Amino acid sequence: MAGSVGLPLADLAAHVGAKLAGDPDTLITGIATLQDAHAGQIAFLANPKYRKYLSSTLASAVILAPDQAEDFSGNALVIANPYHAYARLTALFARKPTKHRGIHPSAVIAESVILGQNVSVGPLVTIEENVEIGDGTVIGAGCFIGEESRIGADSLIHPNVTVSHGTRVGARAIFHSGVVIGGDGFGFAPHESGWTKIHHLANVTIGDDVELGAGTCVDRGALSDTVIASGVKIDNMVQVAHGVKIGENTVIAGCTAIAGSTEIGANCVIAGGVGIVGHITIAEKVTITAMSLVSKSITEPGSYSSGTPITSTREWRKLAVRFGQLDEINRRLKTLENTDQ
Amino acid sequence: MAGSVGLPLADLAAHVGAKLAGDPDTLITGIATLQDAHAGQIAFLANPKYRKYLSSTLASAVILAPDQAEDFSGNALVIANPYHAYARLTALFARKPTKHRGIHPSAVIAESVILGQNVSVGPLVTIEENVEIGDGTVIGAGCFIGEESRIGADSLIHPNVTVSHGTRVGARAIFHSGVVIGGDGFGFAPHESGWTKIHHLANVTIGDDVELGAGTCVDRGALSDTVIASGVKIDNMVQVAHGVKIGENTVIAGCTAIAGSTEIGANCVIAGGVGIVGHITIAEKVTITAMSLVSKSITEPGSYSSGTPITSTREWRKLAVRFGQLDEINRRLKTLENTDQ
Amino acid sequence: MAGSVGLPLADLAAHVGAKLAGDPDTLITGIATLQDAHAGQIAFLANPKYRKYLSSTLASAVILAPDQAEDFSGNALVIANPYHAYARLTALFARKPTKHRGIHPSAVIAESVILGQNVSVGPLVTIEENVEIGDGTVIGAGCFIGEESRIGADSLIHPNVTVSHGTRVGARAIFHSGVVIGGDGFGFAPHESGWTKIHHLANVTIGDDVELGAGTCVDRGALSDTVIASGVKIDNMVQVAHGVKIGENTVIAGCTAIAGSTEIGANCVIAGGVGIVGHITIAEKVTITAMSLVSKSITEPGSYSSGTPITSTREWRKLAVRFGQLDEINRRLKTLENTDQ
Repeated sequence: MAGSVGLPLADLAAHVGAKLAGDPDTLITGIATLQDAHAGQIAFLANPKYRKYLSSTLASAVILAPDQAEDFSGNALVIANPYHAYARLTALFARKPTKHRGIHPSAVIAESVILGQNVSVGPLVTIEENVEIGDGTVIGAGCFIGEESRIGADSLIHPNVTVSHGTRVGARAIFHSGVVIGGDGFGFAPHESGWTKIHHLANVTIGDDVELGAGTCVDRGALSDTVIASGVKIDNMVQVAHGVKIGENTVIAGCTAIAGSTEIGANCVIAGGVGIVGHITIAEKVTITAMSLVSKSITEPGSYSSGTPITSTREWRKLAVRFGQLDEINRRLKTLENTDQ
Repeated sequence: MAGSVGLPLADLAAHVGAKLAGDPDTLITGIATLQDAHAGQIAFLANPKYRKYLSSTLASAVILAPDQAEDFSGNALVIANPYHAYARLTALFARKPTKHRGIHPSAVIAESVILGQNVSVGPLVTIEENVEIGDGTVIGAGCFIGEESRIGADSLIHPNVTVSHGTRVGARAIFHSGVVIGGDGFGFAPHESGWTKIHHLANVTIGDDVELGAGTCVDRGALSDTVIASGVKIDNMVQVAHGVKIGENTVIAGCTAIAGSTEIGANCVIAGGVGIVGHITIAEKVTITAMSLVSKSITEPGSYSSGTPITSTREWRKLAVRFGQLDEINRRLKTLENTDQ
Repeated sequence: MAGSVGLPLADLAAHVGAKLAGDPDTLITGIATLQDAHAGQIAFLANPKYRKYLSSTLASAVILAPDQAEDFSGNALVIANPYHAYARLTALFARKPTKHRGIHPSAVIAESVILGQNVSVGPLVTIEENVEIGDGTVIGAGCFIGEESRIGADSLIHPNVTVSHGTRVGARAIFHSGVVIGGDGFGFAPHESGWTKIHHLANVTIGDDVELGAGTCVDRGALSDTVIASGVKIDNMVQVAHGVKIGENTVIAGCTAIAGSTEIGANCVIAGGVGIVGHITIAEKVTITAMSLVSKSITEPGSYSSGTPITSTREWRKLAVRFGQLDEINRRLKTLENTDQ
């Protein structure tokens, strides 16, 4: 970790392309918020409501937008988008394995597997026949990679991830622990005495720069692949059902569920706990607020919601009764309107 | 996979018991939808809204109901329930391990374990004392099977599944990766300085032909078993709490949660994201729509729902305010009604 | 398991500090409800609605409050809080590994790892550099413990748990299978062509006596740790996002999701399927009912709810339409009120 020794402020400025004000040799050992920073750390001012902490921060440097920098006398990195500069700086201070770890002898790797340059395979991993792993990719301990799968270069597959057979993943993927890719979709045909399984014959295809959070599940398609386009970011415990297609750079927060065959456009922002029913289409640049149920297609960009506001349970009980009377309330209102005419 | 060589159409007809119209020697290499099929594939017409694709499909054969088949001049499998025939055909084209894999030497299997005929145990599996595995069952890489558990014949336990001690599973189970069976139920007795754990002394009992989706969790009972009856199909990331009983052939879609000791009847259809509170009873043949909260017992078959419809966030904000005023709206209405009398 | 031989009733009385009425030598082999108990078992009466089963129970002893015990002629443990006594008794009958299992030879443990006295490490576990495991702790098969993590004494980590680097866990932790601790939080900075990852530089800190249910995910913080205080109990598949702080003895039921940087006070009771948005504060002693969405801070103790009641889908469809007309209904009402003035 770079933080243990410190990096000169000049190197940080160069990394993010910021203008440096102050002492370029100041050693920076880590990142913190304005209010929590201590000497040696760099902080940032992205949200104006934290400006009040600027004058008293103990940070050794602050990332600032040009207009915020005018009155600041400390060391600063001046750049148009301080939040983005902060994000880029985190990469410099992130934990990095101290050495190339190579292939752990306890991993069970089929002979036909093709490993790229500088691939790292952790302990107790299983990689089946005809898998290809791209250059520089790290497969964490305990992962399973099913036959005929491909994972692109410079990917980071955290421990205990399951990638089922036939999955295609692009470059720079990040899959957190507990991810399951390629389970069968939930499809059965009813018959007189129960349900007949529909075997899922298609696969999962994932683009470049996709991140999947811990415990997220992406099912394989029945007849056509489940597809996650490049740049998509998915949080923890999200359900992506069989045959779903998710467009580029869409972000989906935790515990959201997307039912089968639904198509979501590019650049959407889906909040947490959302439910999206199957066989619908959501346009590009759609925002869905937390815990909404999307029960029909959305054809226009914009923000959408469902649900009711939080209130005391005592008050809520009354409102719930009135909700159940809404049709009657409407009728009573109509009666009065007719009476008044 | 049969698809690489192809199967004669006559074999497919025999497999599903359909009447064959056309050339019995046509080789079928896979299954597709009417609109996506290319030469060599078989398609099916189950939903009338896709009938428009029938005349232009490139499929080499189509599964059709008798009334749809009359005008069709191509190769056809004619059968009363084309969707069910399609489901049965998927089994012919599903990926099958090309060989019996046997017991991988890296698996850690207690001496007292009883393995049936043709059992396959993948790499890096742990099987504890006194487990019994039925004939033909496959245990995927990285699974854990706790002591005294039994898994029936011809089951498929995908990689990285956890089955805790004392679990009883019937024949032909399919458990997808990330399934956890037999965690302790969530039970604690309050006392002055915190919570005392209620150790869960019962187990999980699962019937025949049960499928559990990726990441689904079934907790063990406190004093009586959690029970999933035969023919139940459960999707991904479903929570089945301690002491729940689920009746035969009920299906439960993804991300639904069922709280402790609740009993669900046979042949129910529970959609995704549903919440069902504890200690209630749901009758047979009940349908619950997506993301509903079932807060009390349901005694009659039928379909049930809760929630509010999706709308623009801007419009929703107004509705949410009005929802909070519902009791006041009712009072104002009552005042007017009294005035008018 | 004590149940196979049986324990004298006198030992049970001593364990929970109850007054014994009846034969102290009665052997007790297990625990059951009043209605399900058979000879040899002990039952308990905690909820008055089960009092009707007291006279006919086959249990060999019953745990009773003093006022309930007066009319009871069978063996009894008399104590002020029978439910708490029941909880404490379950520990006597819980399955215990019959022997100290030690370190399984298939576990991959870095040389720098410090294991306490009587630590048990199951098969196929990976423990990375500089991990410390406290005395008496059990690490189940297939677990991964990342570098620089610490797990306190007398903890029980069930099979297939993932604890990422730098995690701090107190004593007597119970983590069920599928738990993932220390995944990256869901944080990205937007830029012109997509999202830049915010590397998460902080860790997860967990107090003493914390239980985490199967599949629960706790993400690491970006700049400050995610913190779960002592005595917190969390059910299955709960999402605890980056930087969340949860106060002592709070309990959280299954499938609840807590978004980033939110702070929850001590002694709260959060039901299942709840969603809590990010960057808010919830006071101590707050109850949230099932599937509520908490969209703003809660500053006073009490019970809070959102949502609408379950009803038939047919009736619900009408109510949903009326909900969408609420603003119009309010306007119509206002018109009538003005007319009447």
